[in-house]
Amino acid sequence: MAEQKSDSIHIALLGATGYTGSELLRLLIPHPRAKIVAATADRHAGRDIAEIFPQFADRGIPKLTRIEDQDWSAIDAVFCCLPHGTTQEVIAALPRHLRILDLSADFRLQDPATYAEWYGHEHLAVELQGEAVYGLTERARDDIREARLVACPGCYPTSAILPLAPLLEAGVIDVDDGIIIDSKSGVSGAGRAAKETSLFAEVAEGIHAYGVARHRHAPEIEQELSAAAGHPVSVNFTPHLIPMNRGILSTIYVRLAAGVGFGELCDALVQAYAEEPFVRVMPVGVAPASRHVRGSNFALIGAFADRLPGRAILVSVLDNLVKGASGQALQNMNLMFGLPETMGLEQQPMYP
Amino acid sequence: MAEQKSDSIHIALLGATGYTGSELLRLLIPHPRAKIVAATADRHAGRDIAEIFPQFADRGIPKLTRIEDQDWSAIDAVFCCLPHGTTQEVIAALPRHLRILDLSADFRLQDPATYAEWYGHEHLAVELQGEAVYGLTERARDDIREARLVACPGCYPTSAILPLAPLLEAGVIDVDDGIIIDSKSGVSGAGRAAKETSLFAEVAEGIHAYGVARHRHAPEIEQELSAAAGHPVSVNFTPHLIPMNRGILSTIYVRLAAGVGFGELCDALVQAYAEEPFVRVMPVGVAPASRHVRGSNFALIGAFADRLPGRAILVSVLDNLVKGASGQALQNMNLMFGLPETMGLEQQPMYP
Amino acid sequence: MAEQKSDSIHIALLGATGYTGSELLRLLIPHPRAKIVAATADRHAGRDIAEIFPQFADRGIPKLTRIEDQDWSAIDAVFCCLPHGTTQEVIAALPRHLRILDLSADFRLQDPATYAEWYGHEHLAVELQGEAVYGLTERARDDIREARLVACPGCYPTSAILPLAPLLEAGVIDVDDGIIIDSKSGVSGAGRAAKETSLFAEVAEGIHAYGVARHRHAPEIEQELSAAAGHPVSVNFTPHLIPMNRGILSTIYVRLAAGVGFGELCDALVQAYAEEPFVRVMPVGVAPASRHVRGSNFALIGAFADRLPGRAILVSVLDNLVKGASGQALQNMNLMFGLPETMGLEQQPMYP
Amino acid sequence: MAEQKSDSIHIALLGATGYTGSELLRLLIPHPRAKIVAATADRHAGRDIAEIFPQFADRGIPKLTRIEDQDWSAIDAVFCCLPHGTTQEVIAALPRHLRILDLSADFRLQDPATYAEWYGHEHLAVELQGEAVYGLTERARDDIREARLVACPGCYPTSAILPLAPLLEAGVIDVDDGIIIDSKSGVSGAGRAAKETSLFAEVAEGIHAYGVARHRHAPEIEQELSAAAGHPVSVNFTPHLIPMNRGILSTIYVRLAAGVGFGELCDALVQAYAEEPFVRVMPVGVAPASRHVRGSNFALIGAFADRLPGRAILVSVLDNLVKGASGQALQNMNLMFGLPETMGLEQQPMYP
Repeated sequence: MAEQKSDSIHIALLGATGYTGSELLRLLIPHPRAKIVAATADRHAGRDIAEIFPQFADRGIPKLTRIEDQDWSAIDAVFCCLPHGTTQEVIAALPRHLRILDLSADFRLQDPATYAEWYGHEHLAVELQGEAVYGLTERARDDIREARLVACPGCYPTSAILPLAPLLEAGVIDVDDGIIIDSKSGVSGAGRAAKETSLFAEVAEGIHAYGVARHRHAPEIEQELSAAAGHPVSVNFTPHLIPMNRGILSTIYVRLAAGVGFGELCDALVQAYAEEPFVRVMPVGVAPASRHVRGSNFALIGAFADRLPGRAILVSVLDNLVKGASGQALQNMNLMFGLPETMGLEQQPMYP
Repeated sequence: MAEQKSDSIHIALLGATGYTGSELLRLLIPHPRAKIVAATADRHAGRDIAEIFPQFADRGIPKLTRIEDQDWSAIDAVFCCLPHGTTQEVIAALPRHLRILDLSADFRLQDPATYAEWYGHEHLAVELQGEAVYGLTERARDDIREARLVACPGCYPTSAILPLAPLLEAGVIDVDDGIIIDSKSGVSGAGRAAKETSLFAEVAEGIHAYGVARHRHAPEIEQELSAAAGHPVSVNFTPHLIPMNRGILSTIYVRLAAGVGFGELCDALVQAYAEEPFVRVMPVGVAPASRHVRGSNFALIGAFADRLPGRAILVSVLDNLVKGASGQALQNMNLMFGLPETMGLEQQPMYP
Repeated sequence: MAEQKSDSIHIALLGATGYTGSELLRLLIPHPRAKIVAATADRHAGRDIAEIFPQFADRGIPKLTRIEDQDWSAIDAVFCCLPHGTTQEVIAALPRHLRILDLSADFRLQDPATYAEWYGHEHLAVELQGEAVYGLTERARDDIREARLVACPGCYPTSAILPLAPLLEAGVIDVDDGIIIDSKSGVSGAGRAAKETSLFAEVAEGIHAYGVARHRHAPEIEQELSAAAGHPVSVNFTPHLIPMNRGILSTIYVRLAAGVGFGELCDALVQAYAEEPFVRVMPVGVAPASRHVRGSNFALIGAFADRLPGRAILVSVLDNLVKGASGQALQNMNLMFGLPETMGLEQQPMYP
Repeated sequence: MAEQKSDSIHIALLGATGYTGSELLRLLIPHPRAKIVAATADRHAGRDIAEIFPQFADRGIPKLTRIEDQDWSAIDAVFCCLPHGTTQEVIAALPRHLRILDLSADFRLQDPATYAEWYGHEHLAVELQGEAVYGLTERARDDIREARLVACPGCYPTSAILPLAPLLEAGVIDVDDGIIIDSKSGVSGAGRAAKETSLFAEVAEGIHAYGVARHRHAPEIEQELSAAAGHPVSVNFTPHLIPMNRGILSTIYVRLAAGVGFGELCDALVQAYAEEPFVRVMPVGVAPASRHVRGSNFALIGAFADRLPGRAILVSVLDNLVKGASGQALQNMNLMFGLPETMGLEQQPMYP
């Protein structure tokens, strides 16, 4: 199962022992053209990956190293799965020949002032901030192909931008009124750090909202929606934590633009994603479930006419670790290296 | 533990083997003044309750019977935990000396036309429909004390009406724009019927919306909010099923009335519930979790100023089987029989 | 993603809407040589698979049919995912050119008397009972390659036989004393039928044993262990239901044969599986977790010296729907059609 | 709900912000005779309990303090919910007028050598180790009534000793062969410390064994079983972690003593617990579920004749935080202060 791959893309995986890191291992190991030649984890340097993740024993993953000990000369691509905040300095120090897929939030916001406002400090690699491409694959293919540094979108923003951006571009929804995004996420989105709030007994058998009206994904969503609309868009974004490992479902409440019918909204959605391999619009009236995408790179979008006249409801689902993180990063890598976009991403959803 | 109770209220529990029925058993067994003298379950008539629910062995519950075999003469109160639709005929046939707490939806809608529209047939006991009191305890104490038939509210409506009604009464929110209620419920709300959609493997590790824009709790919510506002109120109500046994969390998006500040909204809430034993308004900015009420009769409400100017977010939580069903029914029974309202409802929330 | 496959094996999937059926869909859709040309589901005949499993929309699966309407002439292989009891007559009626992978229990027991004792009636296709090969891949490759009818093992038996059979063959454990197999399974093992005992709220947040000392998998385990030992072996087998979708963990308590040390037991295990692609023996003292195999065809085995002298503990894990059912069936199909055994089974475990 | 209690027992709760601490809060708040007059939590000293556990707002719990700042003069009883290892010094420093219920493991082992062997260091309060009474209520009532220091049993040992001790006393099971105890626990048993291994995403949707053949509860079980048997008893004890908040189920495999039938085993069990308010023996052949005791102080025991002649299987269930910890501690407090043993422990199990 670890047979020789010719023409391999040589990959370094930074931060291999978190959840986006392990998910990349899951996806990259059977990928026909990827070869993981370095995997870092400062805290576990020198250990075999199988001591952390027994499921990856004997898959040919090299021993874990520290970033600072890494020789970058034979590396083609870097997946960066490091915490927010520390990532910008790590990436700024990497040699320029590397093509970088960053899964942190560090390069998602393009405006230095917005970054400083939401993260509480000046960005430490402002020049790269300008160079980074926001990597929502379906909306930036050409830029991603050419990019050196791709800022892979957050899981929540992916679930919000996919349904909303085409509607804003088509002008079928009203934005003056505000757009309400009520999101529900599984717990792996909080990462693998040992925090009391992520303990099983704190999360199972319950639900709560968090970061109400002040979650850092709001400006990220607004940046992309404003670009789609051609003018500033504000959103209300309220995330909730629910007791499941994976999955995000966003319920989005919008007002139709004056004179626009619900059918036009549906048409805009269907048209936007008709040719997409990973985004699918449900038949009208059918609600997607996060189970329908678990473990896969698919995103599903359903649309509903509201009982309140002139309003509509959108429901989107994706797997936060796949289309919401590592899968989308791999989709982008495929583009950057001229491979078929779906390569290594054809796992079917796992249900149950 | 089954000691003699003097001055007991003699209770018949109809539909003892569903979840609202078993929850009433849990609450009534240690209640100082309640005595269960009859328990029905057509499908299990003649069996001991412990064959269905081993946890209630040796608690002095009489053998299960059929409703039609019941002698009502020595009964004071009836808790009716039967399915929607069949309940109305059962209750219509009960003798008039009984005081009835109905946990079905059959008597919640007061307008026969609204009932017919949402349930697809004429109501079969229209005269009782007029007599029934909508039993949201905190808002109808005087009527409940005198009522013969109390229609206990649905779990979703309780979670929506508690935070919204005082705001509408105080005139601090705008209703022309529509009110958006995004609700998330545990699975016990779907009842104990053997349905594919309620199977563990269909529900665990996932989330989905259902009944989008057409759930029957919407007219129930609108009926009560319209009464509070003094004029018709429309809501968008979108329920979601999440993988937990118990609990409801509703996230509610409202627009402040012209000239009203967020502080006034908070004041209206705090004032409404200052003296209530079971409804608590959280400190500003603190989000309630369904875990904070699990197994108890409490409801918690949090309020947040939205980032979108002039908008606010309310988050309410309750246990769908307690304050959302059996606990509220018992709270009403206490009122109807002149007992302290909190009697038998002082269980503290179970966390984890 | 539904590109043309040359040299396809034409497959009929009987019982496509249960969990072993949907798992076969998940595995077969991306399989390079499999082509699903028929899928049956009596209750849903005429419908599109996407109405039942939206995750399989647009994957080229033909409309659901009834078994009796099926033309078998162009079919090469049949996966039979039908309920126990009804399967034997269905398979008896199939044309002889078909190669059949049966996932039910109907052909697992080779002795008609044992079958009648445990299933309460005479076998209805006794001649086929003799022809069927017990399809635990690692132990019967040669027979499976030639077989027309393969009886794929149950999930529990696979988890018990894999660790125990090599030990019995090697003579390193004592069998007079009885072997104790304590198994814990996820809920999907109970199938997709709408049963009260499989409801989310009956299963979540709890555990129970069932079929204690009388589960039908016991004789199946004994049949295979007796064959491995060369003389009759008795086991105690106690299954438990735990709140997870997938996964089985069996904890097995054995006594070492006289004069045999724990190291010899380990050696026997390691040697048995050294070359196996899907069965892995953990380093001594490392306990496998069902998470390490979720969604994959792997089985892991750990061995521990007991504190009680002369005793040892084995822990095995597998995914009940993959190595315990549909994955092993596909592994067998690969053998039967001369394909690499691992084809289409290289999905890495999904964790979390 | 925080009404005045006369004749109160004044209680200090040390370690109020862990799970056994919060469970004691849940149980003590409505207890008719208990009054919590001090609650400590070093890390949170000075804060209101509601900042940690919003569910306990307005219940009259004093502000959190540090142990070293506590005035003990007006305290009657101390519940000690501190980590293993640090507890012994804390308790050694407490004034002698206090009656102490310790929920840690520090005083459970009576033999200093055994303690040192399993915990890796000499006991720091050996004189108290001799004074402590092992507080399995049903087996030590007289000693507990008089005790100054009660070492409340671990959750696993309670689930093993309750079914086994009466059988050993009655001489109906053989002990030379070893007793096998296969236990499954919910995650709250691991406490509230922020550990990677207790994270939701590490625990949900899976199962694993841990501490195989070397868990510290083994010597505790052996100490008590040896006392019951009158001679040394060895056990194999294998714990497993399963994805639920609460509950323990132990499946116990025993050999009947020579000439003893299964009926005699059942008789011994039934007789031992006939008068017990919290321990119940199930009808023969009925398997208890952890759901049947969730949130309550009950323990249930089922007995089964094995298929292997001369062997039997016992299944016990309890809630690890109630009968396995805080509930049993309260049961002991009731005894120590001359109150009815069941006071404040009459909550019925919560299902679902």
